[in-house]
Amino acid sequence: MEPVTPSEGWGALHLFYRVDRERAEREPGGAKRVLDAVASLEADEHQALCFAVLGHKADFGVMALGPDLARLQAFEQELAAAPLAPSWSYVSLTERSEYTSDEERARQRLYPRLPLKNAICFYPMSKRRDPEANWYALPFEERKQLMEGHGRIGRSYAGRVLQLITGSVGLDDWEWGVTLLADDPAVLKEIVYEMRFDEVSARYADFGPFFTGLLLEPPEALRRVGLAD
Amino acid sequence: MEPVTPSEGWGALHLFYRVDRERAEREPGGAKRVLDAVASLEADEHQALCFAVLGHKADFGVMALGPDLARLQAFEQELAAAPLAPSWSYVSLTERSEYTSDEERARQRLYPRLPLKNAICFYPMSKRRDPEANWYALPFEERKQLMEGHGRIGRSYAGRVLQLITGSVGLDDWEWGVTLLADDPAVLKEIVYEMRFDEVSARYADFGPFFTGLLLEPPEALRRVGLAD
Amino acid sequence: MEPVTPSEGWGALHLFYRVDRERAEREPGGAKRVLDAVASLEADEHQALCFAVLGHKADFGVMALGPDLARLQAFEQELAAAPLAPSWSYVSLTERSEYTSDEERARQRLYPRLPLKNAICFYPMSKRRDPEANWYALPFEERKQLMEGHGRIGRSYAGRVLQLITGSVGLDDWEWGVTLLADDPAVLKEIVYEMRFDEVSARYADFGPFFTGLLLEPPEALRRVGLAD
Amino acid sequence: MEPVTPSEGWGALHLFYRVDRERAEREPGGAKRVLDAVASLEADEHQALCFAVLGHKADFGVMALGPDLARLQAFEQELAAAPLAPSWSYVSLTERSEYTSDEERARQRLYPRLPLKNAICFYPMSKRRDPEANWYALPFEERKQLMEGHGRIGRSYAGRVLQLITGSVGLDDWEWGVTLLADDPAVLKEIVYEMRFDEVSARYADFGPFFTGLLLEPPEALRRVGLAD
Amino acid sequence: MEPVTPSEGWGALHLFYRVDRERAEREPGGAKRVLDAVASLEADEHQALCFAVLGHKADFGVMALGPDLARLQAFEQELAAAPLAPSWSYVSLTERSEYTSDEERARQRLYPRLPLKNAICFYPMSKRRDPEANWYALPFEERKQLMEGHGRIGRSYAGRVLQLITGSVGLDDWEWGVTLLADDPAVLKEIVYEMRFDEVSARYADFGPFFTGLLLEPPEALRRVGLAD
Repeated sequence: MEPVTPSEGWGALHLFYRVDRERAEREPGGAKRVLDAVASLEADEHQALCFAVLGHKADFGVMALGPDLARLQAFEQELAAAPLAPSWSYVSLTERSEYTSDEERARQRLYPRLPLKNAICFYPMSKRRDPEANWYALPFEERKQLMEGHGRIGRSYAGRVLQLITGSVGLDDWEWGVTLLADDPAVLKEIVYEMRFDEVSARYADFGPFFTGLLLEPPEALRRVGLAD
Repeated sequence: MEPVTPSEGWGALHLFYRVDRERAEREPGGAKRVLDAVASLEADEHQALCFAVLGHKADFGVMALGPDLARLQAFEQELAAAPLAPSWSYVSLTERSEYTSDEERARQRLYPRLPLKNAICFYPMSKRRDPEANWYALPFEERKQLMEGHGRIGRSYAGRVLQLITGSVGLDDWEWGVTLLADDPAVLKEIVYEMRFDEVSARYADFGPFFTGLLLEPPEALRRVGLAD
Repeated sequence: MEPVTPSEGWGALHLFYRVDRERAEREPGGAKRVLDAVASLEADEHQALCFAVLGHKADFGVMALGPDLARLQAFEQELAAAPLAPSWSYVSLTERSEYTSDEERARQRLYPRLPLKNAICFYPMSKRRDPEANWYALPFEERKQLMEGHGRIGRSYAGRVLQLITGSVGLDDWEWGVTLLADDPAVLKEIVYEMRFDEVSARYADFGPFFTGLLLEPPEALRRVGLAD
Repeated sequence: MEPVTPSEGWGALHLFYRVDRERAEREPGGAKRVLDAVASLEADEHQALCFAVLGHKADFGVMALGPDLARLQAFEQELAAAPLAPSWSYVSLTERSEYTSDEERARQRLYPRLPLKNAICFYPMSKRRDPEANWYALPFEERKQLMEGHGRIGRSYAGRVLQLITGSVGLDDWEWGVTLLADDPAVLKEIVYEMRFDEVSARYADFGPFFTGLLLEPPEALRRVGLAD
Repeated sequence: MEPVTPSEGWGALHLFYRVDRERAEREPGGAKRVLDAVASLEADEHQALCFAVLGHKADFGVMALGPDLARLQAFEQELAAAPLAPSWSYVSLTERSEYTSDEERARQRLYPRLPLKNAICFYPMSKRRDPEANWYALPFEERKQLMEGHGRIGRSYAGRVLQLITGSVGLDDWEWGVTLLADDPAVLKEIVYEMRFDEVSARYADFGPFFTGLLLEPPEALRRVGLAD
């Protein structure tokens, strides 16, 4: 299988599923299929975070990321063999911020290594192009200044919230995906709420659906969603 | 199972289901599964309100709340074993209002004990960020003053309507969830209608879907939706 | 079963269904179940209008109304036993207009007795809260004057169109439900078109989905949608 | 069956279906049911145009029109017995234009006889009621003048495009339905594109979904969508 | 089968499917059916590009284009016999740009020959008709100048991104379809992002859903989505 690797950054798939309970009962081995797919993906130098989703948007979520889009597509197909019904997904690439020249930060965004916190939230977003609030009509310097203020809020949560922004312009329905990890679920609400007053969000952001989950070791995530063998 | 507890507030799941009648006939015991899940959740110091939903958005609803998100996720999975098809849900956390320093009110919002009234209505909402009506661009003092007027309307219904606002910024698609309980269904319409003329709603609120139900003891709620064993 | 009765007005359920033809063939008796449910509801002093819906939004519609929400929920559950798949619904309460003090008109809106015309149309609607066209920011006197003009159009169709407005603020996704009955289907289009030029609609109204049907005696309505036994 | 006939104009149903292939294989005779329904409708002095739809919105489409809404509803129910799954529909009535007093044109719009061209496109539309572009706030004379310009574009396609506007205010979700027939599919795109620059569309129109199909004799249309017996 | 050929340009179908795995297991031969349909379409002088889609919007995609809409509809029906469930589609025609008189460019847009790059992205888009940003109210010369700037960005990616714009005004829900092919997936994001700052997009464009896939030889595309026999 020929790899398909972006010239910069990694591919990222946020995959959400409902457990197909009737099929899971009929065909045991579903958990093993998922665990094998995850282990094999990680053996190929990609990463997969598993989580149990709160609410009915999904039961189970996986965030898979790494250098090869063909490998990520293969992973998605391996999951299709488990008793999981796709409910939603998001396709993006890791990317550096155009507003900072800090190479260490760029490296962390392009080639992240995500830790296992208690809770995860994911949402996609776009910048507005309203006649009266058009992000894309602002000069670069103004955007840079606005984004620096926005980034300062994010960094004030350092150690409490890990934030990864991935880019999806041209790839999926919104322009960016935001993945937040934290041990304290209240702080996920707190950081997004605080940012909402910042001009970048208050004036220029549109938000897609929000997903919240409990980040867990893969076997435990599967047990929590009723897929243990 | 490691608990996942917010540093402040409780988790809240509003879960809506359609009864899967064919499965209910094939597999008796569905009502017992739900009742056992509710009893076990309450034994673990969480609360569950059950209701029969009016209209086709759902047959059965449960509002579950308490300190541990992992316990609430487990409850949701226990319901998944009953002949119930998920139709909609909402994920939020209880939170204090930032606009009042009254500690008793904060405690009631953070750690509520909800009574069994005749009727319940639930809807999510957000504050607008339109260029011409941007809540998040208002100074704190102006928001506080507006919210005090809004709160006064709510309190004028004291004894007739119990209102609980939960926060979902970063967690679900709208910014807050509103749960209203009343014995007189007409008063649910009345309070929301009166508030709609208040500037906080009239100018700054966007509303999601509304759900209306009959709040009942769990066994009676299940009988009303055709799930009695 | 404890009744749940609004302190003023009746409950109203607009229920739309697709006929589940495979189930209808497998399980005869579907028409009888619906007819029994209707007869029993009417014996309990509630009303049910049955209609065959045009187009694919639904096959069969029922508008049920009366004093007890618990009785209406039970009626909805009785229909769930027939081979009918829910497609859409609306929950509202009858209410007096706040803009008229005519007690006879108020009584007709609160406790209506609907006749069997040839055709029915139903749609929900809300008043706008746009920064530039905010109904809820208008003073009462201005709203009253606007509504009087609007009402005059409605009354100019007296004898040709029967109109019932029910209130759903806080109960369902739009603020009001509009039910129109007429013998001439062209006049349903005519009245709504004429009102659209009136400022109340032209400037302040948002409309939800429209449903059109042929109002019939219940057994005939069921025959027309393929549910006769 | 009592006819339900508008005092002016005919009923029109645009019905879209996906072929249920598993059922079609299980139950032969599906094509015959559709052909019988069409023949019987036409014997009752109504018209039915059949087409194979391009893309996944539907496989098969029928535009049925004629004086009796009850007859059209019966036709829709006869199709429900074939292995066709409803995917979308539109309900409208033929109507004269209020902006022309030409009786021959009025007659052609009220009681049309549609020819069999190669291609058909259908879409619903509404006129805007934005605070800054409110069609319904314009005086009649201005609307008439705008519509005359719009009509001139339509007539410049005479012989190449046949256009039928039907009215659905109060009956379905948009205000009008537009049916275009042409032998050259490129000209369907051309006429709608040219009209989009006309002020009536450019400034005042909102468009619903567009459906494109190949108009065919009924037996051939069914063969093309895999329903031949 | 009578061909239906536009007087200028070709038909284009973008077809997206989920693999129906249960049916694929029950009925082997699915891959062969697709490969036969593709081979037969190409033998008839049409083109079909196959790709494995990333994320849950679809598993498998085909872009089929060529002179005869009847042949393309037949191709779509042949795929309907494979274990593929339609998930989304787009109908358009190739067209020349009205803003350039370069005949060679026109020919390439009208009668394209698409190469097999690693990655494909597709999205539909429309030009805005907002009162404050109305593309269709701009004079031709201004639109031409704006489009020339937009085109220059596109051409600066020559050799890295192949872009095909097809027209769908009057045929499908958006006004144009955009197909981008590249070996480097990062450059798909880059070109769309750069164009978003260009006034044509920043001020006048609305975008529909985005699909991203891995372009492959048909047998390999089918293997990647689990349809190999």
